[in-house]
Amino acid sequence: MNVRIGKRTQHFRTVTFHAGTNRVVLVEHRLLPHRFGLIETADFRETARAIKDMIVRGAGAIGATAAYEVAQGARAFRGRDLSNFSRHVERVCQTLREARPTAVDPVNAMDEVRRAMRAGKTVEERQAIAVAAAEEFANEDVRHCEAIGKHGAKLIRDGLRVLTHCNAGWLAFVDIGSATAPLYAAQARGRKFHVFCDETRPRCQGATLTAWEFAQQGISHEVIADNAAGWLMARGEIDLVIVGSDRTLGRTGEVANKIGTYTKAVLAHRHGIPFYVAIPLSTIDWKIRSGRDIPIEERNASEVLGAWGTDGRGRREYVRVANPTSGARNPGFDVTPPELITGIITPKGIFRPHELRAKRALLQDRS
Amino acid sequence: MNVRIGKRTQHFRTVTFHAGTNRVVLVEHRLLPHRFGLIETADFRETARAIKDMIVRGAGAIGATAAYEVAQGARAFRGRDLSNFSRHVERVCQTLREARPTAVDPVNAMDEVRRAMRAGKTVEERQAIAVAAAEEFANEDVRHCEAIGKHGAKLIRDGLRVLTHCNAGWLAFVDIGSATAPLYAAQARGRKFHVFCDETRPRCQGATLTAWEFAQQGISHEVIADNAAGWLMARGEIDLVIVGSDRTLGRTGEVANKIGTYTKAVLAHRHGIPFYVAIPLSTIDWKIRSGRDIPIEERNASEVLGAWGTDGRGRREYVRVANPTSGARNPGFDVTPPELITGIITPKGIFRPHELRAKRALLQDRS
Repeated sequence: MNVRIGKRTQHFRTVTFHAGTNRVVLVEHRLLPHRFGLIETADFRETARAIKDMIVRGAGAIGATAAYEVAQGARAFRGRDLSNFSRHVERVCQTLREARPTAVDPVNAMDEVRRAMRAGKTVEERQAIAVAAAEEFANEDVRHCEAIGKHGAKLIRDGLRVLTHCNAGWLAFVDIGSATAPLYAAQARGRKFHVFCDETRPRCQGATLTAWEFAQQGISHEVIADNAAGWLMARGEIDLVIVGSDRTLGRTGEVANKIGTYTKAVLAHRHGIPFYVAIPLSTIDWKIRSGRDIPIEERNASEVLGAWGTDGRGRREYVRVANPTSGARNPGFDVTPPELITGIITPKGIFRPHELRAKRALLQDRS
Repeated sequence: MNVRIGKRTQHFRTVTFHAGTNRVVLVEHRLLPHRFGLIETADFRETARAIKDMIVRGAGAIGATAAYEVAQGARAFRGRDLSNFSRHVERVCQTLREARPTAVDPVNAMDEVRRAMRAGKTVEERQAIAVAAAEEFANEDVRHCEAIGKHGAKLIRDGLRVLTHCNAGWLAFVDIGSATAPLYAAQARGRKFHVFCDETRPRCQGATLTAWEFAQQGISHEVIADNAAGWLMARGEIDLVIVGSDRTLGRTGEVANKIGTYTKAVLAHRHGIPFYVAIPLSTIDWKIRSGRDIPIEERNASEVLGAWGTDGRGRREYVRVANPTSGARNPGFDVTPPELITGIITPKGIFRPHELRAKRALLQDRS
């Protein structure tokens, strides 16, 4: 999406590959929202480390980064021996597997690139295929987000006041984002609307990343404390809610997403406000049979007990907010039941949560 | 309540008066939770400034501080002439009125002390009455909180898991607090329970003040992000909610309180969890006829866009969290309708919200 640099507006993807220098180019997430910058990784080890150190984050973005990492690593091989090449590619993949052992997207991306490479008969052919497959992986992510935008834009009427939670924006994907896609598409169609960004404690991805995206894109928005959404709904100041999802159960329509999503769904339901979840196909889980079986990560208490920001001199700093002798609970995600969800916006259309099951063949077809 | 100082535990009131030195002694709220300290004000101007600068905050606490300020000012008068004395007392009261022009408690407290003083026939008598009336004002605040505790303690069974929002603790009163009173009373009866403190963004009074109180009192507790309460309820980890109130409408049973209270009430209602509001009699408003007419303060956006805490060297610091080019909405309070409230815990007993109206005579009797 667009970033304002001085007086110019320039388009960026979160992740790209520069074939000439064999470098992966990443938006440096850790500097945002206070500074925008790119970093280039010189080899596959640096790319894997960028994933590990969360220089890049978000399912779609780390998937594409992983795909490029395999291509980058494969192209660094010198020689013609196919079995030496295969051993080298295995080392490249192993480095990646160790970067974020629990994340599923990098592994899927890597497998896809490796599978494609098998069609090549020489090292050179396989290297070329790897780049093409990685580009295709990233392009597919963009196409799916565009399709979410196309379907979701119908919901964004002129004058609408929308609530978002956390960041499911272009920074978390290669471009466009999931929950933000309908908004960017509606903006492209000339519609005017306003977005309230939940700050999304404890990590504040709404106040930092989503608000930054909207500021860059010129979308009218305000940050609110998570406590304020209910009251704004009661006063009739919110018309629609759109969130993303970390995992959506295809069998039941239950949605796991950032902590606080469930609360916003309960509030929206009480006030008769439509509540939508925008998802790429890769986040649909067809295996798990009940939301109770979704593992909910309990994260570090320090996130709740303090906050990261910049001090008066522009330095990144963590301040301890809470009483120093108190502890905290910090569940990272919650699960929203299907009866609170108006619709799920997918690249294949908008469905009621309980319809996903019947649409399995369509939703598993990634073409 | 108790404060741990080194290995000892010592009892403090938020506000006391030292007759020998004619000084008001205040818990310095602005240092908490990172340091506990008292300050003494040398004259009525300093006391008024302590209210203005929010060294002391909370309806009960600033009421008692105002009562003592009048006594302190009256006793500083030298002479026997009653009309000179009256002019002096008027100056004392005017200084106070200018300290926090919108707060009602200091004005009520001041009027009460002045009314009592009229019974004195000499300057000396009136000075003595002023001290006695101020002490009585503070003691009444304590007795009312004790009575809230006595009625509310019945709700706190062994093993209960309680949710609180913001700070309606002893720091906001002279002692004991309103929402905390049932908990302290249950603890005194030997009951064991656990409290989740909503951090209460944007000002985080739950994470700072309430958590500090519980740590000092040895009450088992954990801080949670405001986003987490709904999920803990859904998992069956919260049994009861108790909050305070800034203004409760006697005619309708509507409760205005810190932003986010309404959200917790909606969530509790969905999960069949009892939701109680603890209030001193002074916060009941018998005039306003509808919650829609309660003025809701829109506070400074900087509260939402950043956070106050202590840095690694223990210095108080504000960090900007949100995207620097984004603004914020910041309603300070919300209004919870009576149908979401299980009961209102008053010094005179626990009532359903719609019962307040019929109990007006009882609730206006401050004896």
